[in-house]
Amino acid sequence: MSKLAEEVLNKNISSVAKLVRKVEDEDNDVYKDLKFLYPYTGNAYILGVTGLPGSGKSTIINLLIKHYRSLGKTVGVIAVDPSSPISNGSILGDRIRMLEHSVDEDVFIKSLATRGWYGGLSKTTSRIINILDAMGKDVILLETVGVGQAEVSVMNFSHTTVIVLVPEMGDYIQTIKAGVLEIGDIFIINKIDKSEPNELSQNLGALIHHENEGPQDWRKRIILTSALNSVGFDELINAIDDHREFFLKYKKEKYLKNRANNELKDEIYGYFLDFVIKKFDNDKSFEEIVNSIAKKKADPYSSSLQIIKNLKIKK
Amino acid sequence: MSKLAEEVLNKNISSVAKLVRKVEDEDNDVYKDLKFLYPYTGNAYILGVTGLPGSGKSTIINLLIKHYRSLGKTVGVIAVDPSSPISNGSILGDRIRMLEHSVDEDVFIKSLATRGWYGGLSKTTSRIINILDAMGKDVILLETVGVGQAEVSVMNFSHTTVIVLVPEMGDYIQTIKAGVLEIGDIFIINKIDKSEPNELSQNLGALIHHENEGPQDWRKRIILTSALNSVGFDELINAIDDHREFFLKYKKEKYLKNRANNELKDEIYGYFLDFVIKKFDNDKSFEEIVNSIAKKKADPYSSSLQIIKNLKIKK
Repeated sequence: MSKLAEEVLNKNISSVAKLVRKVEDEDNDVYKDLKFLYPYTGNAYILGVTGLPGSGKSTIINLLIKHYRSLGKTVGVIAVDPSSPISNGSILGDRIRMLEHSVDEDVFIKSLATRGWYGGLSKTTSRIINILDAMGKDVILLETVGVGQAEVSVMNFSHTTVIVLVPEMGDYIQTIKAGVLEIGDIFIINKIDKSEPNELSQNLGALIHHENEGPQDWRKRIILTSALNSVGFDELINAIDDHREFFLKYKKEKYLKNRANNELKDEIYGYFLDFVIKKFDNDKSFEEIVNSIAKKKADPYSSSLQIIKNLKIKK
Repeated sequence: MSKLAEEVLNKNISSVAKLVRKVEDEDNDVYKDLKFLYPYTGNAYILGVTGLPGSGKSTIINLLIKHYRSLGKTVGVIAVDPSSPISNGSILGDRIRMLEHSVDEDVFIKSLATRGWYGGLSKTTSRIINILDAMGKDVILLETVGVGQAEVSVMNFSHTTVIVLVPEMGDYIQTIKAGVLEIGDIFIINKIDKSEPNELSQNLGALIHHENEGPQDWRKRIILTSALNSVGFDELINAIDDHREFFLKYKKEKYLKNRANNELKDEIYGYFLDFVIKKFDNDKSFEEIVNSIAKKKADPYSSSLQIIKNLKIKK
């Protein structure tokens, strides 16, 4: 039993904010709340939107919020911000964006700075998705900056992934194609009022060409938009709705297993991480080993093996 | 003793390539070679260059290679490519860039796709730096795409970090400022032949303004370049040389300790990661737990705690 979790199920916004903060603070007891909420998850539609700064991603997110709100759906937004690995904290940009929707109780916006060691991002994002899912959000928008590995791994949580590009990003497509092309279900070429999209559209089309695809393979789509003027937005919504239908029909079962596998591994992994950090950060003998390594009197490879041996993990 | 490591010390290129491949393949025995090489590390100058695709980063890397080669220095290049988390493999772009220097035995270029779980990137990069360092490379250029958290964490290995921007990237600076500004020692605004750099230069200048800085604080510099025409390149080299001197005087000792700490933790962490993956990937009972979680009959939080309890790690 968890009083906080019950309040979350009752859609109490300040309790949601409190629980999200507990997750971010890596509170030791948070697993009790999360455990209580877990059976209530699995109903939200998770829509990922990724793109470089300057692609107009935020404008598109805003249009999506308005669209889902106009249908009476409740919306959660998780903005994963990879820019703050050192000075973590909230982002001014998000505060500004929030203003428009902050009077709307049915829109919950959370920006996540990535802190500490890598890996934490995936666990934290997954946990917060589950909180918003359990509290009954119909749609969760997962926003990331589409370059880094950690950010791409977060996109594995979305049911539908939208990649936002602008015509000038031909170079980006060349460099980035492998990973990002594979995770994208729908590609937006935005800001077509500013530049000619044909070249990027053709190059992108060639990269995502379809061969012998069966009914269980989604045909990736390219949509030209000018989000500031809502041009192409209806087509985007159609594509998202089509992909959602496709997801529910062909992908959901596999997604749920993958997600469960990742959640479980992230939790185990997170435990080891905490264990390593807590065990060694204030450990004098560990500090001595570090000093020897810094002086090249020891090496990290033998030292780590010795430390692991001393931990005596049951295999 | 390690024959392969001895050959690396003798600058045998094919042995270096072989050992690097062993690191990438996560060969279980590679620690023996790395351990042997470790006492020979610590002499290379590690220069990090980070920037978004389209910033002209590759042109700058090429100029730096030529510069150090003209001084008779040997050069290693490690290009960390975050674009391939899924379909890992080598990058065409790098093969093309390599051609120019591939006839030069004293330039070793390696591109690293990030694969598997997050976290591996840091360990792998650190290990390859050590191989190139031990084999006697005078300068190691560490190239990353500057956005993601994993990529920023890799930049912690460099002695001097150069961030490459172009005038159009004002938006990028706004979004990304916290983390990237902190890790940057020198900022290049490149392609000034194409666009007016003043606005970005002023904004950037305001963000990195200096207050009451003592002799042990580096004053971050902004350099305007047009790398294609080598404009501003002498000034860049001066700034790099100044920072290197500063690093050796004030930062080296702290760097060595931090680096040793990170190496040791990355190795321990990597062990746990392997352990989790190997232990559970073909484990029937683990699969059953995953299936229960997918059906919301179990939750990842209690299940992970139970699994960890069963491992009986000695605290």
